[in-house]
Amino acid sequence: MSDEKEIAVILFDGFELLYVFGPVELLQFVPHYHLEFYAPSPGKVSSSQGIEVIAPRSLADLESADLLLVPGGKGTRALVNDQDFIGRLHLLGKNSATVVSVCTGAALLAQAGLLSGYRATTNKRAYHWVTGFGPDVSWQPSARWVQDRSR
Amino acid sequence: MSDEKEIAVILFDGFELLYVFGPVELLQFVPHYHLEFYAPSPGKVSSSQGIEVIAPRSLADLESADLLLVPGGKGTRALVNDQDFIGRLHLLGKNSATVVSVCTGAALLAQAGLLSGYRATTNKRAYHWVTGFGPDVSWQPSARWVQDRSR
Repeated sequence: MSDEKEIAVILFDGFELLYVFGPVELLQFVPHYHLEFYAPSPGKVSSSQGIEVIAPRSLADLESADLLLVPGGKGTRALVNDQDFIGRLHLLGKNSATVVSVCTGAALLAQAGLLSGYRATTNKRAYHWVTGFGPDVSWQPSARWVQDRSR
Repeated sequence: MSDEKEIAVILFDGFELLYVFGPVELLQFVPHYHLEFYAPSPGKVSSSQGIEVIAPRSLADLESADLLLVPGGKGTRALVNDQDFIGRLHLLGKNSATVVSVCTGAALLAQAGLLSGYRATTNKRAYHWVTGFGPDVSWQPSARWVQDRSR
């Protein structure tokens, strides 16, 4: 088990269910990886829809991940201005091998400086808002997804 | 609010996340409908993946729904033999305008007699197991989904 790699999924109030559980449905089957769920405050986390999901672990206890997954959702609108969260995300992203966001999760990564110099994209319905957080990001206006280098 | 219709989603230990949250992602936007989550034992319900989701309401408190959604997942293997659950599902399905299952949720509906005389289908990887519960169901071996009449 010590060789198992960790996929760390970050939940926060106002996350969008499908942005988490779509990828999780696939990622659960990747050999030699296991999933763990973290939140700024562990315990019940309320999705955009008001459905509560348990995040057993505190983000404060996470130093790095083999794959870091940051979903989007309405909750990003407040979280992007949460200095404590953004600072923690910055450190965590710097120490993680692969960093992935879905939809407006890209605003969090950009605000944390994790996309600086990288190509990235986001949901086109939130494009203007998200790209405002990353003046030094090479935003791709028409891509559905972007993959740019290892960290 | 009294004119709002209810979509009742049934959770149980071992439900598959995407079978719930895929449909929920769409259903949340249907005008004049709201979503409620029920479980045989309300509170924390553990998905196939071990992720816990809160079902705030007890299935015992539900008499009918405008739309009843029964997901699949590993947990159906035990639940299909749970007489109390199946009996309750039978009554609930009889009183609900629209009854929907995803994947092996069809085994639960069939066992509860709710598909008798109806066309239905299920996940083809569980087809043999599921169809064993409904000798009087018109199982469709190649359909991805089936819609058959109002109740």
